[in-house]
Amino acid sequence: MSIVRHEPSSILCNAVVHNGVVYLAGITAADTSADVKGQTVQVLDEIDRLLALCGTHKSKILTASIWLPKISTRPQMNEAWNLWSDKANLPARACVESKLADPAWLVEIAVTAAV
Amino acid sequence: MSIVRHEPSSILCNAVVHNGVVYLAGITAADTSADVKGQTVQVLDEIDRLLALCGTHKSKILTASIWLPKISTRPQMNEAWNLWSDKANLPARACVESKLADPAWLVEIAVTAAV
Amino acid sequence: MSIVRHEPSSILCNAVVHNGVVYLAGITAADTSADVKGQTVQVLDEIDRLLALCGTHKSKILTASIWLPKISTRPQMNEAWNLWSDKANLPARACVESKLADPAWLVEIAVTAAV
Repeated sequence: MSIVRHEPSSILCNAVVHNGVVYLAGITAADTSADVKGQTVQVLDEIDRLLALCGTHKSKILTASIWLPKISTRPQMNEAWNLWSDKANLPARACVESKLADPAWLVEIAVTAAV
Repeated sequence: MSIVRHEPSSILCNAVVHNGVVYLAGITAADTSADVKGQTVQVLDEIDRLLALCGTHKSKILTASIWLPKISTRPQMNEAWNLWSDKANLPARACVESKLADPAWLVEIAVTAAV
Repeated sequence: MSIVRHEPSSILCNAVVHNGVVYLAGITAADTSADVKGQTVQVLDEIDRLLALCGTHKSKILTASIWLPKISTRPQMNEAWNLWSDKANLPARACVESKLADPAWLVEIAVTAAV
């Protein structure tokens, strides 16, 4: 079973595909001037782009791990989540509080999906 | 390889099965009047129920991710874990501190298992 | 699809193999007198050992989850990461702040790899 790696940086790959599953890196927003909802929209757009790059789609999402530096902002994150998510194909999800590498990042999301 | 999704809420599914693996959502206690050990018992009971729903069992557990809002309560969580876990079939496990979505939740656990 | 479990302790296995994937437990340093970089070196050495035990290698790593009790120490962790990681075969990675079970632990890393 081969491994296909997409978009390597110096420390990680944005997407790794193996045995019918794609694993995405923890994704954060590029434009950190946005609020929690706006950053979440950016993160989910980037997840859409990476899933497409791997030949899959949010309808095949398996899991989502969500980290918020302030768990009290979960409702704002969920507003963007609810606009984006495929209600017929929701993943197993966990959402907890953790500070992120850049204090300007207000949300980080890592997903896996079937390919 | 098909995807089977169980118990969707508005934001997630409690269990997603794909390619011989079930992924459970991060599970928390329904009765938050319980202490850490009591909430962990509830969480592990719910995990048993969801694994059974997917046709599997804790003896086939692969991984467990555990979040505690106070890492100092790990011994109380482990008391319930030790009563529940199948000593011949223990998972790879990580346990770290993170605040959870509801401050009344004292433990959250997400597991994967072979189906 | 069988499950192979390596190095059980009383609460977890250090490595669980299923369906062509190995899942490692969250690994921490044995010698906690070391600083963040030194503890990360120890953790990555232990990951090498466990991957070899399962018949695989860091070149087949799929994902890495990294927890730091102080996210500000990420650069020191990354120094060790950059010396260790296989630049042609980088994993999907997420790195967030969480306190760990022992306050002397300065980094915890859980990886998955193809076998």
